[in-house]
Amino acid sequence: MTISERLRQDADDIWKGIFERQFIVELVEGRLPLKIFKFYILQDYNYLVSAIRNFSIIASRADTVESMREVVEILHLESVSEFRGYEKLLRDLDYTLADAVNIQPVPMNTTYVNFLLSTSSLKSYPEAITSVLPCFWSYAEIVEFHKDKLKNNRNKIYRKWASAFLSEDYLKLVRKIRNLVDNAGKDFSYEKLKKIFITASRYEYLYWDAIYKMQT
Amino acid sequence: MTISERLRQDADDIWKGIFERQFIVELVEGRLPLKIFKFYILQDYNYLVSAIRNFSIIASRADTVESMREVVEILHLESVSEFRGYEKLLRDLDYTLADAVNIQPVPMNTTYVNFLLSTSSLKSYPEAITSVLPCFWSYAEIVEFHKDKLKNNRNKIYRKWASAFLSEDYLKLVRKIRNLVDNAGKDFSYEKLKKIFITASRYEYLYWDAIYKMQT
Amino acid sequence: MTISERLRQDADDIWKGIFERQFIVELVEGRLPLKIFKFYILQDYNYLVSAIRNFSIIASRADTVESMREVVEILHLESVSEFRGYEKLLRDLDYTLADAVNIQPVPMNTTYVNFLLSTSSLKSYPEAITSVLPCFWSYAEIVEFHKDKLKNNRNKIYRKWASAFLSEDYLKLVRKIRNLVDNAGKDFSYEKLKKIFITASRYEYLYWDAIYKMQT
Amino acid sequence: MTISERLRQDADDIWKGIFERQFIVELVEGRLPLKIFKFYILQDYNYLVSAIRNFSIIASRADTVESMREVVEILHLESVSEFRGYEKLLRDLDYTLADAVNIQPVPMNTTYVNFLLSTSSLKSYPEAITSVLPCFWSYAEIVEFHKDKLKNNRNKIYRKWASAFLSEDYLKLVRKIRNLVDNAGKDFSYEKLKKIFITASRYEYLYWDAIYKMQT
Repeated sequence: MTISERLRQDADDIWKGIFERQFIVELVEGRLPLKIFKFYILQDYNYLVSAIRNFSIIASRADTVESMREVVEILHLESVSEFRGYEKLLRDLDYTLADAVNIQPVPMNTTYVNFLLSTSSLKSYPEAITSVLPCFWSYAEIVEFHKDKLKNNRNKIYRKWASAFLSEDYLKLVRKIRNLVDNAGKDFSYEKLKKIFITASRYEYLYWDAIYKMQT
Repeated sequence: MTISERLRQDADDIWKGIFERQFIVELVEGRLPLKIFKFYILQDYNYLVSAIRNFSIIASRADTVESMREVVEILHLESVSEFRGYEKLLRDLDYTLADAVNIQPVPMNTTYVNFLLSTSSLKSYPEAITSVLPCFWSYAEIVEFHKDKLKNNRNKIYRKWASAFLSEDYLKLVRKIRNLVDNAGKDFSYEKLKKIFITASRYEYLYWDAIYKMQT
Repeated sequence: MTISERLRQDADDIWKGIFERQFIVELVEGRLPLKIFKFYILQDYNYLVSAIRNFSIIASRADTVESMREVVEILHLESVSEFRGYEKLLRDLDYTLADAVNIQPVPMNTTYVNFLLSTSSLKSYPEAITSVLPCFWSYAEIVEFHKDKLKNNRNKIYRKWASAFLSEDYLKLVRKIRNLVDNAGKDFSYEKLKKIFITASRYEYLYWDAIYKMQT
Repeated sequence: MTISERLRQDADDIWKGIFERQFIVELVEGRLPLKIFKFYILQDYNYLVSAIRNFSIIASRADTVESMREVVEILHLESVSEFRGYEKLLRDLDYTLADAVNIQPVPMNTTYVNFLLSTSSLKSYPEAITSVLPCFWSYAEIVEFHKDKLKNNRNKIYRKWASAFLSEDYLKLVRKIRNLVDNAGKDFSYEKLKKIFITASRYEYLYWDAIYKMQT
């Protein structure tokens, strides 16, 4: 069993809970109030900006030239394609970029993002790269888990949004990050990685709820 | 006068000295011993690896989303195109990547690189982005200064290598970094930026000499 | 007017609000439920641990040898005297150190702490040292503002706890940090410092409310 | 065998070489030209300033509250007692503080210091705390190794300076840092720690030679 598989297994209870979050179930079934989805997109734009910053820190602390260049590759993908995707989505939802920049992130957004930034700034590279894995990987699993429901989903925006996480490109990205974790974790304390992975998984769980409740 | 123009002016004596380094004059005239050029390329490969790391740190500390994304753009360019260019050049010079990885950087290489890494890790973003400007900009000016000599240069490898710094792509990159400095320096102490710019310019000067003397 | 005076003035509305937080008014009048005060002390122990970490980062990025040594002085004070004071207080409240270590910080605690750590890790030294000022300074002003009420406070634990912030030693510490801000801010954008000072002041305000509501 | 003992053993050849550096042999025998010793003290003052900065970074990245507080303790010792000791020594040698601040560190000084700062900024805490061990520990071993020669040393300044590293206080400090390394290294790759320890040991060796040759 690889390190990432073991981490995934040890967080299984939390991930099962993530799959059942109200936000997710209603989204894949097409009945999530648009208001909540729009709120989510504004919040997630802010998350993305910090994720780019975070990947920059991780790149700077990568343990080999190869892993540094791979993290730069992911960082660039987030900064260019992902960013552009969000900007397009914002326009589709009748938002301007200014709307996204000016919203107040919900506390759980800030908490999660600052956990990532503190981890990558103050802990080791293996812990840093592990901290970003639950976000990327759980999106792939969420959509895979609800694939059947998604087929019957008549809400075009939601179906399109969710389907992106089934694409080969996205799954390749997830494999890439898993691979970085597997390599970085080779001669590193598993318990330390697990602690990070569990914490980030919990934040994923709580983030979906925070958005649903729109707690500002 | 922009901030970068003022910095350039205040370092003019050092830059004039850079133009006249033995390494540079012999290179543009085509009479630099190949042994020294090969030594330089091996050294510079190591400089590039650290430069990628350094740009990652700078990206993480950029003051706006726009500047962060622009630094990521440059970082990606270094990590992909520049890197590939070096790998090709190494092959052309009958080196393997392992040769480049395994050499011992000369003290001035280490000193310069660690100055960059310490500046971007411990000082502010405006100082960090200023620290990388002399390297990029002086290459453009060096080759522009010796353009006529370059035309009569019959050493194909040297002419090709130097001409890259006259290309519109390269000059655009220099303008981009100058622009980042001009923006970052707007409400920042000019004296602090000048100190960084002068130090980095001096290291450029000393680096050329250290390579020429092949002082390991 | 010094920079710190100007910052204090620009945050005046928030600070007036801080003085009137239910937690504070009930504490200085001696009628705060002990349960809430105990909860606060457990939370604040966790804040202190991060504050020590935070001051370490700030010291590492100080702009002069003198300011670095002064930040180390404050850091050491927090790590030794403050820490010991908390350990004693925990014992007086029948807590063990393990109780404090094992509690779950409330979201506002995590949010505030991670704001401090991100600021000192990623922004400049002047912003970093400014971020810690509202916490130290507002405690002194809170107790000074409620001095009369404190005299009639018959709750020995609360009176003793609050009076520490009236001591000459504490006021000297506040002056020291104000002085560091005044020096660091000399050739630095006032608007950037203000943004940090206002954010930290808001977090102080929200922290008191979060503790009172014991929202875990 | 503890981790620090194993590191010490693996660097034995380098350390034996350190004991025989010309600077050291002439110092313990009392025949080192005063000019060189004075040069050393000016250089080492600059090293100390960076060492304080470095310990601040290490403290910020310590893995437990206990180790953080212990690093703060050492950091404070360096910033107060060590610093004061240097200031006194500078006065005894008819230098002002300005003399020390204004000298140009020799390249090996800069190289060594920047290696320490880069390690503690970009690598993990176990590697960071390991990087400072060779400096502290080798001083104790150098003087212990030459104890007999030191007894017959008639140069009062040199004898006094060297004897400090035989004191129980100093040996306790070395044990403390070894203990931090032993704890931090418990579930960490030994090979990574060894690489750091060997590099720092080599820099110690080269530093003594660089000073002796007064290569500026």
